[in-house]
Amino acid sequence: MNPSKSIPAAFRAIDVIRKKRDGFELNAQEVEALVNAYTAGDVPDYQVSAWLMAVLWRGMTRPETAALTDAMLHSGEVLDLSSLRPRKVDKHSTGGVGDKTSLVLAPLVAAAGVAVPMISGRGLGHTGGTLDKLEAIPGFNVNLPVAEFRRVLEVCGCSMIGQTAEIAPADRKLYALRDVTGTVESPYLICASIMSKKLAEGIDALVLDVKTGSGAFMKSEKDAAFLAELMVETGEGMGKQVVALITDMDQPLGKMIGNALEVIEVVEVLRGGGPEDLRELCLHLAGWMLYLGGASKSVAEGNQISAQLISSGKALQRFRQMIELQGGDARVVDDFKRLPQAQNSIQVLNKTAGYISSMQCEQIGTACVILGGGRERKEDSVDPSVGIVLHKKVGEQIQANEPIATIYYNSEAKAERARHMISESVAIAKEPPAAKRPLIHRIIGTSGEKT
Amino acid sequence: MNPSKSIPAAFRAIDVIRKKRDGFELNAQEVEALVNAYTAGDVPDYQVSAWLMAVLWRGMTRPETAALTDAMLHSGEVLDLSSLRPRKVDKHSTGGVGDKTSLVLAPLVAAAGVAVPMISGRGLGHTGGTLDKLEAIPGFNVNLPVAEFRRVLEVCGCSMIGQTAEIAPADRKLYALRDVTGTVESPYLICASIMSKKLAEGIDALVLDVKTGSGAFMKSEKDAAFLAELMVETGEGMGKQVVALITDMDQPLGKMIGNALEVIEVVEVLRGGGPEDLRELCLHLAGWMLYLGGASKSVAEGNQISAQLISSGKALQRFRQMIELQGGDARVVDDFKRLPQAQNSIQVLNKTAGYISSMQCEQIGTACVILGGGRERKEDSVDPSVGIVLHKKVGEQIQANEPIATIYYNSEAKAERARHMISESVAIAKEPPAAKRPLIHRIIGTSGEKT
Repeated sequence: MNPSKSIPAAFRAIDVIRKKRDGFELNAQEVEALVNAYTAGDVPDYQVSAWLMAVLWRGMTRPETAALTDAMLHSGEVLDLSSLRPRKVDKHSTGGVGDKTSLVLAPLVAAAGVAVPMISGRGLGHTGGTLDKLEAIPGFNVNLPVAEFRRVLEVCGCSMIGQTAEIAPADRKLYALRDVTGTVESPYLICASIMSKKLAEGIDALVLDVKTGSGAFMKSEKDAAFLAELMVETGEGMGKQVVALITDMDQPLGKMIGNALEVIEVVEVLRGGGPEDLRELCLHLAGWMLYLGGASKSVAEGNQISAQLISSGKALQRFRQMIELQGGDARVVDDFKRLPQAQNSIQVLNKTAGYISSMQCEQIGTACVILGGGRERKEDSVDPSVGIVLHKKVGEQIQANEPIATIYYNSEAKAERARHMISESVAIAKEPPAAKRPLIHRIIGTSGEKT
Repeated sequence: MNPSKSIPAAFRAIDVIRKKRDGFELNAQEVEALVNAYTAGDVPDYQVSAWLMAVLWRGMTRPETAALTDAMLHSGEVLDLSSLRPRKVDKHSTGGVGDKTSLVLAPLVAAAGVAVPMISGRGLGHTGGTLDKLEAIPGFNVNLPVAEFRRVLEVCGCSMIGQTAEIAPADRKLYALRDVTGTVESPYLICASIMSKKLAEGIDALVLDVKTGSGAFMKSEKDAAFLAELMVETGEGMGKQVVALITDMDQPLGKMIGNALEVIEVVEVLRGGGPEDLRELCLHLAGWMLYLGGASKSVAEGNQISAQLISSGKALQRFRQMIELQGGDARVVDDFKRLPQAQNSIQVLNKTAGYISSMQCEQIGTACVILGGGRERKEDSVDPSVGIVLHKKVGEQIQANEPIATIYYNSEAKAERARHMISESVAIAKEPPAAKRPLIHRIIGTSGEKT
């Protein structure tokens, strides 16, 4: 603990709870004292949970949000990667269904000479988690100590690990409490949680992928944009370059959902194939990462460089290298049979001919969780082999009895529940949808899109 | 635990927190399950404190308030006093400064043949507590077991004790949590806390004294009336006769503040003397208690009977009897020197001549707490001997250098702080106040005032 983490003697948590409850603005000292006292165990959970609910009620001002982020960031170790020559850029997604862009981006951006020190999370609720996807690769170790993380970064320019005990311990404690007290859904708390962890990575710039739509936590574009602005302002206030892309999560991203299946789709994109939406989003996010990382003069140029790194095979080679450096079996890249495989599969058949007009994306994510591909409770383990492959996406024509999706499963009962959910989640119309939802809805920060 | 206290297997506290947070009405099963699970220790403090803050945010409907009161009431023992022939009536005050009516009312109403089973609390914040006042009488035991409480009631018609472990344990647990999480101030939670305890006493009727003004918890008459209506409706919904008097607490009630001093003023009223406001309020509350207890045909008649019981000395005799039955030294009634006495006294002198236009009543209560007459923290002990005697009340004329009050103290430093606070709390005007605040602002319930 450094001396700045002292808690003023006169500090009383009850005063801070009441002040927030009554709608007043907390000053930075009050926010810092609360976070430090909670992290140190000097303030009990029951006081902090009352305060968290008061924050949901009253919201936070920008200075309060900045103070909370700063206090959480400095509750633990802030990595110093200044010895690494390239600029350090990370990407963070607010979470969705089939969102495997991190696994594409880390090796792709590293191949362009920008370092990607990526600390990720696990799946929770209906969304998948980067760590669970990586662990579908036999042997892949996401629990590297900081020294080893630094070594992998130095060797191959990217490394992907889970949150360590040293980084933002206040966030770990607060997140666990929010999860069980109905206080997850505050944009201010979400902002502080994300930004404190990301800024602790010692990065120069950050690209945020804020999802909106039926499979996102922020269903409405308005809520997504509000959170995006909050995060961009908070990051910029701390001297980082931050851009947020509001991207579509009204249907799963790509066609594969489930941990091992998503690794396959990642490899397909790194080989120059894969579904259009996933490839396009990866190239766009990579464009921003290269631009902010100083590897291109514009986002468009970054996008082009990324496409070349894919077609040359350099991005895929970097993926192989990272897998090996983190103890994984890199042969999976060339032989998908080395990935965990489900015992059975079944098709979900369409009933009436027409066009797919919408998908209840959260339902599809939940169907994958039910198969065992995600967690219903935090302590659950994940079955990496199960999942869903979509054969059609929104806007496409489909015949009666044509398969919408294939389910890969290890339990008949679970497969039956998932089949029912997927079937219910897809709406069919006689006419094709009038307008297609854009993949990228809006760009917030660094003066909009640099092309 | 009776079988109705079971908690449904599917119950999850997080669902109830989220539902309340999002502004939906909880059903009785949900409220009951939460209270029962919390009382049983199956739901942790941190979830309940988040729920309590959500209740402050969203409020409660009448059915929710009734369900909460009922669940708290049935979390413990509900006294069955049906073997006692007379009707059982209690009075509850929301708390104020110098409010010692309970000590007058219990023996006075008992002398009229109505039983008064009174379970009271201790002082907290700037207000005094009935138990602390009773304990100023040497030997008086407020911790009687239920069997002994029942015996004293049978012999003298009244008994005054503290909350036992058996009565409304959910309230004790919830109140302690509310106190440290900034969730005391919800009228719905206040209603459920008061009514669950009072209805557990096995009473037929209840007279509520809801204070309003600068020394009350509900400063505005609007807030006081809202709480009063809530409590009357909740009590009536449970088949009890309930009336609420909104009474003035914009200055201390009577002239004495401090535990032993207040016992003296109680005896003065029971002897037919004492300050006018205190005497009038006691007679009015007693009038209602006699009327609801079936000992008079109207409140006015109850008022008259009460005045006669005082002038005949029967009420005072009943007070002596109750003190003796609860182990106290009844000789204090005739010899105030047997009460704890402070070592020193000092006068608070007025500065400029004029009329007292207002008193910051909460400040005066806090001055008594500072002297040691109340608790700054729950674990503090109380000095029964210290206190304040007011020589003037609002509206009265006062000269320069005339004493406003006398402070009885055991610590010079504390006396100096109290003297300063009292001096600051009194406002002097050149003219007498245009209108006097009424003692009884409004009557809510049982169709208004029965005269």
